[in-house]
Amino acid sequence: MKRTCIKDIKPEEIVKVQGFVENCRNKRTMCFIVLRDITGKIQVTVDKENNPTLSEICDKITLESVVTVVGKAVSNEYVKLNGIEILPDEIKIESVAEAMPIKEDSTIDLRMDYRWIDLRTERNTLIFKVQTLMANTLRNFLIQRGFLEIHSPKLINTASESGSDVFEVKYFDDKAYLAQSPQFYKQMAMASGFERIFEVGPVFRAEKSNTSKHATEFTGFDLEMSYIESYKDLMQIEAEMLTEMLKAVSEKYGEDVKRLFGVDVVVPTLPFPVMKLCDVYAELESRYGYICPKGEEGDLTTEAEHLCENLAKDKFNHEFLFITDYDAKKRAFYHMRDEQGVPLGYDLIWKGVEITTGAQREHRYEILKKQAVEKGLDKDVQNYLKFFEYGCPPHGGFGLGLDRLTMRVLNIGIKEVMFLFRGPNRLTP
Amino acid sequence: MKRTCIKDIKPEEIVKVQGFVENCRNKRTMCFIVLRDITGKIQVTVDKENNPTLSEICDKITLESVVTVVGKAVSNEYVKLNGIEILPDEIKIESVAEAMPIKEDSTIDLRMDYRWIDLRTERNTLIFKVQTLMANTLRNFLIQRGFLEIHSPKLINTASESGSDVFEVKYFDDKAYLAQSPQFYKQMAMASGFERIFEVGPVFRAEKSNTSKHATEFTGFDLEMSYIESYKDLMQIEAEMLTEMLKAVSEKYGEDVKRLFGVDVVVPTLPFPVMKLCDVYAELESRYGYICPKGEEGDLTTEAEHLCENLAKDKFNHEFLFITDYDAKKRAFYHMRDEQGVPLGYDLIWKGVEITTGAQREHRYEILKKQAVEKGLDKDVQNYLKFFEYGCPPHGGFGLGLDRLTMRVLNIGIKEVMFLFRGPNRLTP
Repeated sequence: MKRTCIKDIKPEEIVKVQGFVENCRNKRTMCFIVLRDITGKIQVTVDKENNPTLSEICDKITLESVVTVVGKAVSNEYVKLNGIEILPDEIKIESVAEAMPIKEDSTIDLRMDYRWIDLRTERNTLIFKVQTLMANTLRNFLIQRGFLEIHSPKLINTASESGSDVFEVKYFDDKAYLAQSPQFYKQMAMASGFERIFEVGPVFRAEKSNTSKHATEFTGFDLEMSYIESYKDLMQIEAEMLTEMLKAVSEKYGEDVKRLFGVDVVVPTLPFPVMKLCDVYAELESRYGYICPKGEEGDLTTEAEHLCENLAKDKFNHEFLFITDYDAKKRAFYHMRDEQGVPLGYDLIWKGVEITTGAQREHRYEILKKQAVEKGLDKDVQNYLKFFEYGCPPHGGFGLGLDRLTMRVLNIGIKEVMFLFRGPNRLTP
Repeated sequence: MKRTCIKDIKPEEIVKVQGFVENCRNKRTMCFIVLRDITGKIQVTVDKENNPTLSEICDKITLESVVTVVGKAVSNEYVKLNGIEILPDEIKIESVAEAMPIKEDSTIDLRMDYRWIDLRTERNTLIFKVQTLMANTLRNFLIQRGFLEIHSPKLINTASESGSDVFEVKYFDDKAYLAQSPQFYKQMAMASGFERIFEVGPVFRAEKSNTSKHATEFTGFDLEMSYIESYKDLMQIEAEMLTEMLKAVSEKYGEDVKRLFGVDVVVPTLPFPVMKLCDVYAELESRYGYICPKGEEGDLTTEAEHLCENLAKDKFNHEFLFITDYDAKKRAFYHMRDEQGVPLGYDLIWKGVEITTGAQREHRYEILKKQAVEKGLDKDVQNYLKFFEYGCPPHGGFGLGLDRLTMRVLNIGIKEVMFLFRGPNRLTP
């Protein structure tokens, strides 16, 4: 017999339902079970007096056990859950649950220890329904626009980019490192003539920080495109894809997100507002009295980042804010610079948190090499520099963290948003 | 001015085209450039005598340099490439290429050293167009059927499954390992009540084998689903999703694959044929005289695997063959077994190569533990066993290798099919 999902149950049908026992009031003559599957909850009402076999089974059922129930769905106005209950002919215990080791109000770290139980709530399941939709909407948006998907290696022979905060791997008789980002390889794809690519995959950061936004492993969403005219092309496509993503989330899960997370999923208007960094600081001072500490004007301070939530809202009635014209000293060596030395890139701030760094890349071998030398990285990036010696299109790109993006959509912390969080002190389950 | 893709160029239009210089015949009075982008090739014809500025630029152009050309597209019946040429007003060299370090007939290992150049051919780019379509078709197929996407951690605290062939990572003051498969975590998602999930991500194998199908890192495509009635549900969904995938590839790239790889993309018929392992051996003997070596009848030998290509074709006129009823000794401890001890799972053979192992999983804690003890793994899988102590639905799943799947579609080897191959002696570029 085919299983019926709980949300599809109609009165007067004989159905087979399967799920976890969310509640079980086992009285002498009656047993009321609340069964939960991923689509909803339903009451199963057992008349124990007239069903000795079922009665015996009911006595063995523990909370969170998994059971299969076959029976008739009937309307009953006294039943709270949709006014329907199931009168079972058969109950089978598929898996008996031990006493629950966590409760809703357990500490986050204890909940992490038993993450597979912690994830069973409607709220926590919704995180992954939303994230699935987010990633798929972004991917389909790009694939419709001719982007190819790549899977670049995570095992690399030199510490990428900065060289610090990288995990070392024993690689047979040699050493390898875990990629901190697909940056160099997505640029390699440009030198391969792939023109437009994206990648969704894990990135690894050996940072010993215990904040609400850092993890040692998370899911990156990166793209790169050739023949852009400037980084403004990147800002445009990023704004469009995020808007499409939020539209999809709002339509499918907007009400659930509001009910379970108390957050409004706002579909942004296009184009997103853009400001130069110096103008941001000027307005933060005039509007909110914030003065950037001396010497830090070339980058956005953490406090300024937070204040940008207000600035974007007050000045543009928007949740997003693109910021441009950072100081070259604060940006990666591979960002292209204009004739005045200003990096041709941007950060995107959403609700007071930076979610992207994007830039046109320097594709001209000699200039790129010079910029690497300036930052003392020329030896580390020798292999990378080769990508630009045999012809490479002008290009640019940006990266998003899928987990960070989900954090912003739902307004929750990093430990909650990840299927399994990884931090300096957390490698289990 | 907006860029026009080469395939979209129409005569009498003023266009801006950008791409690599595939060929350059630079004569005294004329220069003929063949420009290539991801959509096609076009001839750029420069009248050097009447354009001294352009003439100077032409003299600097090397093969595989990247250029931007603005000019008028005109029909010319003497031009081989679609009968169109561009008469340029402007040419800009975006990136000068050094002399090419590889040729089409270079060894595969030299080509790997310069993979970004190797990937520039129409043939090699097609690999990733096809793979992009494959992965996206599979994902969308599953998402339409209510599957959630997860991103499970690749950093784990114990060597997964067999314990051998696993990479060790220095994790701050501790050790971690790289996940060999998301197996345990996709089952964890079942214990979380996610019901149907899939994951696309890297898997790592520290195997020191240099064959045409092994890599130390590749892209896994894994799924798991709850409340199946038997592994036959898995075979059905797998057959359906592969059929949908091949239909998409055939429609969009069938002709290109035939032209560039000489392979027919065959859309299979449903259902796929199924045989028991003992029947496979009986037919391999009667049809092709193959006799399985004594003691190896519980598993499919490599030679038998290859012969299954003929068997599937001769007996069923099909490219695929499901094989069931393997010996429990040859299967993972977490496969469910029937009352006779026969594992409730299958392998899928495509064109003589195993592409999947699928099975209903043992979700009953006590039996699962017993099976782990039998294989001497109970200590290694302690954390995993916990997933089954607090209620877990009956479930099953299977895994595919995205690279191996692409190998079969295009009939090429592992080094060719991967964006960047990783093997015991290969960590670069």
